[in-house]
Amino acid sequence: MNLPRSREACLQLDAADPLAPQREAFDLPAGIIYLDGNSLGALTHAAASRVQQTVAAQWGTDLIKSWNQHGWIDLPERLGARIAPLLGAAADEVAVCDSTSVDLFKIAAAAARLRGTRHRILTERGNFPTDPYILQGLAELVPGLELRMVERSELEQAFDDTTFLVVLTHVHYRTAEMFDLAAVTARAHAAGARMLWDLSHSVGAVPLDLSAARADFAVGCTYKYLNGGPGSPAFMYVRRDLQPDLQPVLAGWLGHARPFDFRDDYTPANGMARHRCGTPPVIAYAALDGALSVFDGIDLQALRRKSLALAELFIALVEQLGPDSGLTLASPRDPALRGSHVSFAHADGYSLMQQLIERGVIGDFRAPDLLRFGFTPLYLRYVDVWDAVATLRDELERWRREGPRRVERLAVT
Amino acid sequence: MNLPRSREACLQLDAADPLAPQREAFDLPAGIIYLDGNSLGALTHAAASRVQQTVAAQWGTDLIKSWNQHGWIDLPERLGARIAPLLGAAADEVAVCDSTSVDLFKIAAAAARLRGTRHRILTERGNFPTDPYILQGLAELVPGLELRMVERSELEQAFDDTTFLVVLTHVHYRTAEMFDLAAVTARAHAAGARMLWDLSHSVGAVPLDLSAARADFAVGCTYKYLNGGPGSPAFMYVRRDLQPDLQPVLAGWLGHARPFDFRDDYTPANGMARHRCGTPPVIAYAALDGALSVFDGIDLQALRRKSLALAELFIALVEQLGPDSGLTLASPRDPALRGSHVSFAHADGYSLMQQLIERGVIGDFRAPDLLRFGFTPLYLRYVDVWDAVATLRDELERWRREGPRRVERLAVT
Repeated sequence: MNLPRSREACLQLDAADPLAPQREAFDLPAGIIYLDGNSLGALTHAAASRVQQTVAAQWGTDLIKSWNQHGWIDLPERLGARIAPLLGAAADEVAVCDSTSVDLFKIAAAAARLRGTRHRILTERGNFPTDPYILQGLAELVPGLELRMVERSELEQAFDDTTFLVVLTHVHYRTAEMFDLAAVTARAHAAGARMLWDLSHSVGAVPLDLSAARADFAVGCTYKYLNGGPGSPAFMYVRRDLQPDLQPVLAGWLGHARPFDFRDDYTPANGMARHRCGTPPVIAYAALDGALSVFDGIDLQALRRKSLALAELFIALVEQLGPDSGLTLASPRDPALRGSHVSFAHADGYSLMQQLIERGVIGDFRAPDLLRFGFTPLYLRYVDVWDAVATLRDELERWRREGPRRVERLAVT
Repeated sequence: MNLPRSREACLQLDAADPLAPQREAFDLPAGIIYLDGNSLGALTHAAASRVQQTVAAQWGTDLIKSWNQHGWIDLPERLGARIAPLLGAAADEVAVCDSTSVDLFKIAAAAARLRGTRHRILTERGNFPTDPYILQGLAELVPGLELRMVERSELEQAFDDTTFLVVLTHVHYRTAEMFDLAAVTARAHAAGARMLWDLSHSVGAVPLDLSAARADFAVGCTYKYLNGGPGSPAFMYVRRDLQPDLQPVLAGWLGHARPFDFRDDYTPANGMARHRCGTPPVIAYAALDGALSVFDGIDLQALRRKSLALAELFIALVEQLGPDSGLTLASPRDPALRGSHVSFAHADGYSLMQQLIERGVIGDFRAPDLLRFGFTPLYLRYVDVWDAVATLRDELERWRREGPRRVERLAVT
């Protein structure tokens, strides 16, 4: 793509954009440019109406009968099947349940029971913290188990015959740096280990093909690019041939083969249903179910092209501000190595981001110095990118005149 | 209480009932008598409006800023503090997070790391299945750990110096049989074990005093008598003096002392916040937050008196149907030993319950032969009990004339 050189040229790109009509599916507040869909996706009309219907017409009116009449009981598998195409997985390889953290534990703990003589789980330093925290918690619970954390540059040397599980996040939450999913999976397999991908920052923005990569396991978040709502339940993927041997450790009653027999002894359900654990939070599922409808019929390659086009435009415009801006690209310059967000480092990044937010350009900040900007192709326009950088330029100029404002640090940054 | 002997007398009781106005807080469908609030509590107007507000005004409008502006980040502790008075616990001893199954695992696994030389977890056969399944899953993960299940009659003899944790459900899901919480806790402590109570069928219906009992741990469900909505997040209680030593095994990023520092190494937050694990499902919390408002200012002793009065009336009216009804009380006759639901055994209980449901009297069925009827004092009236038994009598009479209908078995029963 040739980069647009004016606001008018951006408007023309938007007018010609085949994904542009998808914006109508979202209930975006007026007056803001939302570049944080990589943290919390925006509300869709469909999510709002599905929640409303579930609360009033299902819970309120049909009460307990809804478990059958409205299929609440099968929500984990039904929503899993809806997410599967976004992962390059089969419908029966994905379930939606619990949180990413809990699902990561569920898979790692179940995999640990199949580890044979190997005792190590391998991950990288700087991975999204819940992953090492959860894995370390597991390692401290099970004698002999060990979590090994290495720098990304040392990963290649770290695959060895002591490792039974490799856990990596496909797109890095700070820099958007992206692993080659197929190549790293093959590397883990060559070393005799299973591969567990955290796809939280990939799904819904980057085309994935878990099947082609023969990935073993995956987990991921549904409240970022999938717009499932704050804290919406996570997904877990287990490759079909591995499902029969993967016995749940968190063996909840709804994962039983016949939960309503209420037997003392546990027999896991077939397939992904065994990973259900407790009773699913139906209203949270309703929001996600509605939100997923915006992906119906979407060409994921077209989505990726627009994601990269928006990001390329953003990077180019920011870098046109010149070295005096104090902003340095912290994401890979090569788009093939990048997910759908872009980070710039700035010495006073926290204050700068707060000022942008006050001006209606919503990104976020990751300590110590990163401003993150997420590009969600379903509702962002080229003109939004243009206007966001114009606001950034204004703020930097004001800053040069007046100095940065003092900004109080918030709990969530 | 003298039992009312007519429908008119029931109406008079309702007119004099100080809890009767609470019914207005609920959005109950017309034409049904809902005796299944012990399985899925009914919708409140407050829950519906809190969900609506959270979706539209918080998520939709304020997006990512809501984590600070609307206090999403503190929901686990804030809702825990609201539930604490119903448990006889201090505000900082309760958190709301994950499901009952997951929370049970979290506590049992964390307690296992403190077990010293003891290796056993003790529970009873016939406990609600998620409890033994989860505990068995833990025992199979950690070498040397063992789950022992004994009949209730053998419990007294089973407390020994190999047991580090006793896990019991306070009110039994089938029969409503209720343990003496203080006495059993004292018995566990005398044997040197910690006591973990599952309060799923107690909270919101039976006054509890965890502090007076010096109970160590508890978990419980919020979608039954607390009306939090289908699959609403569970609560966990850890006695304050035990909190510092109870290190999370499911060490999620939101349980970190400084989650937004995103460090590689885990430092648990103080108090209950360390048990947060993943990102909380905010919309599900909103429903629960609204629902809990119906307990504001409620006298739990008055609630208990009405619960037992409704149940006593029900038992008396059913037993007046005579032995030909085929119904046999399966719950304790002594109200002091009973929670807030009543079960009757019937040889063809499944069909009979389905027919009652078709007639608008909603209870549920637990295989092989139990009809369960829950009495939720905040929205049930004495006249509802009278009418429910009148419908039961009608159905049994029709049955004697026409025989039972063939009823297809549903997935959830």
